[in-house]
Amino acid sequence: MDVNEAIFMNGGEVESSYAQHAWFAQKVISITKPILVNAVHSLFSEDLHRNKVLNVADLGCAAGPNPFSVILTIKESLERKCKELNCQPPELQVYLNDLPGNDFNSLFKDLSRVGEDQKSDVLLPCFVMGAPGSFHGRLFPRSWLHLVHSSYSVHWLSQIPRGLTSKEGFPLNKGKIYISKTSPPVVVAAYLAQFKEDFTLFLKSRAEETVQNGRMVLILHGRQASDPWGKESCYHWEILAETISKMVSQGLVDEEKLDSFNVPYYTPLQEEVQDIVDKEGSFAVQHIETFTLVLADNQESDTRAKGEQLAKNIRCYTESIISYQFGKEITEKLYHKLTQIVVKDLASRSPTNTTVVVVLSRTMG
Amino acid sequence: MDVNEAIFMNGGEVESSYAQHAWFAQKVISITKPILVNAVHSLFSEDLHRNKVLNVADLGCAAGPNPFSVILTIKESLERKCKELNCQPPELQVYLNDLPGNDFNSLFKDLSRVGEDQKSDVLLPCFVMGAPGSFHGRLFPRSWLHLVHSSYSVHWLSQIPRGLTSKEGFPLNKGKIYISKTSPPVVVAAYLAQFKEDFTLFLKSRAEETVQNGRMVLILHGRQASDPWGKESCYHWEILAETISKMVSQGLVDEEKLDSFNVPYYTPLQEEVQDIVDKEGSFAVQHIETFTLVLADNQESDTRAKGEQLAKNIRCYTESIISYQFGKEITEKLYHKLTQIVVKDLASRSPTNTTVVVVLSRTMG
Repeated sequence: MDVNEAIFMNGGEVESSYAQHAWFAQKVISITKPILVNAVHSLFSEDLHRNKVLNVADLGCAAGPNPFSVILTIKESLERKCKELNCQPPELQVYLNDLPGNDFNSLFKDLSRVGEDQKSDVLLPCFVMGAPGSFHGRLFPRSWLHLVHSSYSVHWLSQIPRGLTSKEGFPLNKGKIYISKTSPPVVVAAYLAQFKEDFTLFLKSRAEETVQNGRMVLILHGRQASDPWGKESCYHWEILAETISKMVSQGLVDEEKLDSFNVPYYTPLQEEVQDIVDKEGSFAVQHIETFTLVLADNQESDTRAKGEQLAKNIRCYTESIISYQFGKEITEKLYHKLTQIVVKDLASRSPTNTTVVVVLSRTMG
Repeated sequence: MDVNEAIFMNGGEVESSYAQHAWFAQKVISITKPILVNAVHSLFSEDLHRNKVLNVADLGCAAGPNPFSVILTIKESLERKCKELNCQPPELQVYLNDLPGNDFNSLFKDLSRVGEDQKSDVLLPCFVMGAPGSFHGRLFPRSWLHLVHSSYSVHWLSQIPRGLTSKEGFPLNKGKIYISKTSPPVVVAAYLAQFKEDFTLFLKSRAEETVQNGRMVLILHGRQASDPWGKESCYHWEILAETISKMVSQGLVDEEKLDSFNVPYYTPLQEEVQDIVDKEGSFAVQHIETFTLVLADNQESDTRAKGEQLAKNIRCYTESIISYQFGKEITEKLYHKLTQIVVKDLASRSPTNTTVVVVLSRTMG
């Protein structure tokens, strides 16, 4: 599977678009806003605000309102701090990055509308660019970036982990598409190894691109429990595997297609993130934290509506890879069934989701 | 009319796409290649190659193969010259600009394929970005760009010229959509005034963005004859007006819609370009020339095929604005009729097209 072609958030003009259903990502952006504001302020203590231009990147930005919230937070914190210090604000250049399959057309059209609304009170000029490409490699010139932000992206791997089949070629994670309670230890190890490799390359690439003392705010889907098969870290993949298994038993999906498929995704522990950063050595951890949110609360009324909403959310970022593997023709049926399972599941529990946030500073290379 | 929404080259996945039918623009890119190579070389005589990063912009890039030809020419000339001088090549950052309605998705997907083909022999790292927005205003930070290229874009105006209706509100350019032999002098004056205003603002914006001694290569649809209604400067608009007039007489298009419509486009004389550059004062003309090409040669065999090819070429860059004004529902019929007229027209003559090329250097502001 070519991950660069298989993974993208659903485009802007379909009913199941990421822009419409990425409310969870939006919630995370809103909760982590004070951390981003702090990172912007720390650029001032490092004297980076004296540059004529501040280069900022949002990596894996997708489309919809989230990248604009991020830009606005950065722009406003810069302006406020410059006013406070009575200094000339730098010009701001923001690079919105995602894989080439991302819906940049929607992103740019939305951007031109956002721009129009705000033309009246422009203090700090802000130039927004699209930067297509994989963050598992170089995207920018050397010593270019002052601030990097990435929310709910770095847990995507560059490829399906190696070592998920036996020497004889048999699938080792049968009936599942991600680490699960039934996965043998070798599967867990393969996933962690791939994350280590990818996140190390991510850090190396950013290290080349980031100026000394530049800041990086990374927000990842992670986990609290040391066991990597807790529902907080793989609820959506577990539910998807259950759905696809049902379709296999109904003869709608080829069993071999399910058994040979695993998603390029890993939800790390805070300690795993810290460990990889320390070993790579180009960045120092300024702040790290983990928090858990309820995905859908079954104590509240109308669990059917809540379940449907959650299913749409899962669909908007998993559909591309699922339909790449299992075919577009079964997508509607698959997500219809998934919705039923989510709704039923909500009757007995409130699924949660864990986020790891880390703020890094580029140290002398 | 909001020009920013109404003008875009046809997207990448339709039969009438710009990518497939922009052979004329491609021909111009190929003919002007030595001029672009010279401009790259002149960056070396200005010592701009000593920058760690060279920022290059292609303004109004559209989609299809042309922006990649431009990037490749720049990259290769830089590499060759650096080898010759035995100096460390700078990193290259290329910004592909167009209005937000442009098909950036196709552009970025094509780009990732081009990138893959060339991974083996990368000498000079090249980072390609999308820069959505109107070049009739600021797009980049101050003193940012070292080289600007723009081919077949700067003749598009920021708006339909003011003053194309009488004081009483009657249309002054009845039955036409651009300057024509029957247009009153006030129409010609209004078009020139709008071009002066737009091109001056274009130069002012680029002056802020371009480093001292930075170069700009502008390639425009222009004219040789002082009369602005020669076929070389308005063949496609003349043919379109004739087509729409026929549809008016058949009751397929509302006459008022034709009479009130004029395109935001102007084909300048070389002298007009030189005059505006001199008056604006931020750039010095390094080189200026005008050349005329045959659009379709009726001496060659198969004028029907040639006419159809020319009609498709006209369609791929005029369809967005035509369907914005006259409605999508008549587009197929309109371009079918246009094809018939072009084929018939080719029997009696070979239409030509004139190009003005100017190379500018940013002088002390």
